[in-house]
Amino acid sequence: MKIYQYPAKEKWTGLIKRPVLQKDEISETIENIFSLVEKNGDKALAELSKKFDSAEVSNLSISNEEIEAVCKTVSPDLKKAIQLAKDNISRFHASQREEIQKIETTKEVICWRESRAVEKVGIYIPGGTAPLFSTVLMLAVPAQLAGCKEIVLCTPPDKDGNINPAIAYAAQLCGVTQLFKVGGAQAIAAMTLGTESIPGVYKIFGPGNQYVVAAKEYAQQYGVSIDMPAGPSEVLVIADEKAVPAFCAADLLSQAEHGSDSQVIFISTDLSILKQTVKEIDEQIKLLPRNELAQQSLDNSHFILLNTVEEAIEFSNLYAPEHLILAVENFEKHIPQIQNAGSVFLGNYSCESAGDYASGTNHTLPTNGFAKNYSGVSLDSFVKKITFQHISEKGLRNLGKTIEIMAQSEGLAAHKNAVTIRLKRRNNETI
Amino acid sequence: MKIYQYPAKEKWTGLIKRPVLQKDEISETIENIFSLVEKNGDKALAELSKKFDSAEVSNLSISNEEIEAVCKTVSPDLKKAIQLAKDNISRFHASQREEIQKIETTKEVICWRESRAVEKVGIYIPGGTAPLFSTVLMLAVPAQLAGCKEIVLCTPPDKDGNINPAIAYAAQLCGVTQLFKVGGAQAIAAMTLGTESIPGVYKIFGPGNQYVVAAKEYAQQYGVSIDMPAGPSEVLVIADEKAVPAFCAADLLSQAEHGSDSQVIFISTDLSILKQTVKEIDEQIKLLPRNELAQQSLDNSHFILLNTVEEAIEFSNLYAPEHLILAVENFEKHIPQIQNAGSVFLGNYSCESAGDYASGTNHTLPTNGFAKNYSGVSLDSFVKKITFQHISEKGLRNLGKTIEIMAQSEGLAAHKNAVTIRLKRRNNETI
Repeated sequence: MKIYQYPAKEKWTGLIKRPVLQKDEISETIENIFSLVEKNGDKALAELSKKFDSAEVSNLSISNEEIEAVCKTVSPDLKKAIQLAKDNISRFHASQREEIQKIETTKEVICWRESRAVEKVGIYIPGGTAPLFSTVLMLAVPAQLAGCKEIVLCTPPDKDGNINPAIAYAAQLCGVTQLFKVGGAQAIAAMTLGTESIPGVYKIFGPGNQYVVAAKEYAQQYGVSIDMPAGPSEVLVIADEKAVPAFCAADLLSQAEHGSDSQVIFISTDLSILKQTVKEIDEQIKLLPRNELAQQSLDNSHFILLNTVEEAIEFSNLYAPEHLILAVENFEKHIPQIQNAGSVFLGNYSCESAGDYASGTNHTLPTNGFAKNYSGVSLDSFVKKITFQHISEKGLRNLGKTIEIMAQSEGLAAHKNAVTIRLKRRNNETI
Repeated sequence: MKIYQYPAKEKWTGLIKRPVLQKDEISETIENIFSLVEKNGDKALAELSKKFDSAEVSNLSISNEEIEAVCKTVSPDLKKAIQLAKDNISRFHASQREEIQKIETTKEVICWRESRAVEKVGIYIPGGTAPLFSTVLMLAVPAQLAGCKEIVLCTPPDKDGNINPAIAYAAQLCGVTQLFKVGGAQAIAAMTLGTESIPGVYKIFGPGNQYVVAAKEYAQQYGVSIDMPAGPSEVLVIADEKAVPAFCAADLLSQAEHGSDSQVIFISTDLSILKQTVKEIDEQIKLLPRNELAQQSLDNSHFILLNTVEEAIEFSNLYAPEHLILAVENFEKHIPQIQNAGSVFLGNYSCESAGDYASGTNHTLPTNGFAKNYSGVSLDSFVKKITFQHISEKGLRNLGKTIEIMAQSEGLAAHKNAVTIRLKRRNNETI
């Protein structure tokens, strides 16, 4: 890790730099996978799964019996925890529902918005070392709340062709309508193009390795939309003299254990807190099973001493972190200054893990500086907001001249005429 | 135009097809433009404007004096109309502000969202035959309401280096912070990369020709986001036996006059209304200055007779039109059936022109079938919604075990430890 004491603002640009992601190399592979899936459908998926995941899958779809059987192997404690997390996520995302507000902008000109679910959505859940059943909750819960009709989930099987029990359990609990054993870029291609077994969807969500990320970007060329662009996960912790070094260290490590490319930034206004946090990290990391990954991430991390919390937030706004932890006293007064962040954790007991799993907020958040121009996943991500308007004859009389003048000035005579022809009609004529 | 009477549902897939957009050919040009602007900044912009727009521009930025002078040439009637439209657009978009709702998902676990403006936004307004000052209103009004700090607008100058007075007037009225005389893909490159004069922005909005559209797509590789993917403008009109053929014809023509690639679909449940509408189009088109463009568009249009309004909406949901006009009696009862559309106009007097200019709804809408998975521009497009959470010590005790079990099951020990280390602390210890 690198420690910077009171770096000048000119140096900040260097400190907020993200690692440059290599994309070009794999684009040919992705194009290839899409073209195979387009041509050969399920057969291509089976071949690609064998090639990339060493998985023999005779049947891509998973029967209800298989789901039931596999769910029985999930411990009661984990089931209870998943249920509680689901309840909290549901409660928070349900609060994001928008009520219809009819606005009379001009007398008898009524405008409003109504939300409609994206009818078909796809969720990708990676396999590998960490079976992210929590991400199933974060994506399927709002999809179900929004009223998506088809919620398709793809996740890679292990070498024996089985999927993770907790993923299956979370999927059936949260209303996933179809569950398929397929992973990688081929899963994204399948949900984009549709195959004999897997339906094509309108929007694809979920994390993945660089191939999955590249495939999601590529999918957009087919008119499919995606949750957001991706990058390595990040946390920025701001700690004043009232912070607890052991807690800060634990939070930084929980980010670092995600992978060697995880981004960790620690800013303190207190040198002693900064030093103690470094010391705590050295202690705590020894006990972690994923300590090698965490150490690689920490090697690239920045530990920065600044003068004030205000200055620290100024830095944070420039960096635009996915997760921002404000381990400071009187955090309330700093909230208005926060401009760019994915999700913010306030005070000494609001650890990132809470939001990652169970407090109710979504953990699918903008990384890589995208918090400057993207929101995290929410109920909004699963709906379109359609505008409606009803204008009465009288309403059009109130508004008509304005429209006519503007259309005329833009040289669009037919736009003008659509009003004129209506206004010309006699007042008392029934329509 | 082509008329289809009661086409079988198997035929619908053919009828909802959009023209295929050619993209590949111009991607080299776009890359070239971005690389020139990156290397040579303002100098490249001047050269490219001369090459593509035949415009000699000595100074890219427009002084306040120049804006004031040019605004004086806008007629009082047009100023009044722009002001009224602005008021309506403001009223409707202000209603989209989200109030902060603090949700206690578990006792002493409080979660909420707060909106923050995208700090720097760019607006592109094309020049050419139709000076779209209405689009300035549609984009700058919500940007200002959202609180965007920098609202940069680029629009191409004419051959004498002047910009359209109504565009300048609308820009200053709606809080555009900087106005530049530059158009085309080079304007998008400038707002993406920044030059000596033009600041780089985080999100780019606005319509344009195929070069501008391709440049906006390309800009995303630099981390800039855009309003939405683009395609030719569209309307689908559904008319029952109570519709007014002259009104329907005027609405279809107002779409058709946009350009030869405009998409026009007319569905009626009444053969006589359909025939009369066709006849009305033949009459009305003669009087239009842009009748050649309109005719080309109409040549590719579909006129369809179906049995019921329900069936017509089923077709419309498959097509997902940018604009949907329901010229039917009892339109209220059909609203819940509408799933995919950008903006909906209800009844015989709600013409599309109203929404294009002045009723208050936004006219930047998803085309090309994107209404299945995208919303039109709204206040939401100019903000990010950041989640916040505050968990007290007691709150974490209530939620802690759930987090620990889930983190453990995902194999993320440091995530678990961030909770454990906090729960281990003695209850009465001050922090």
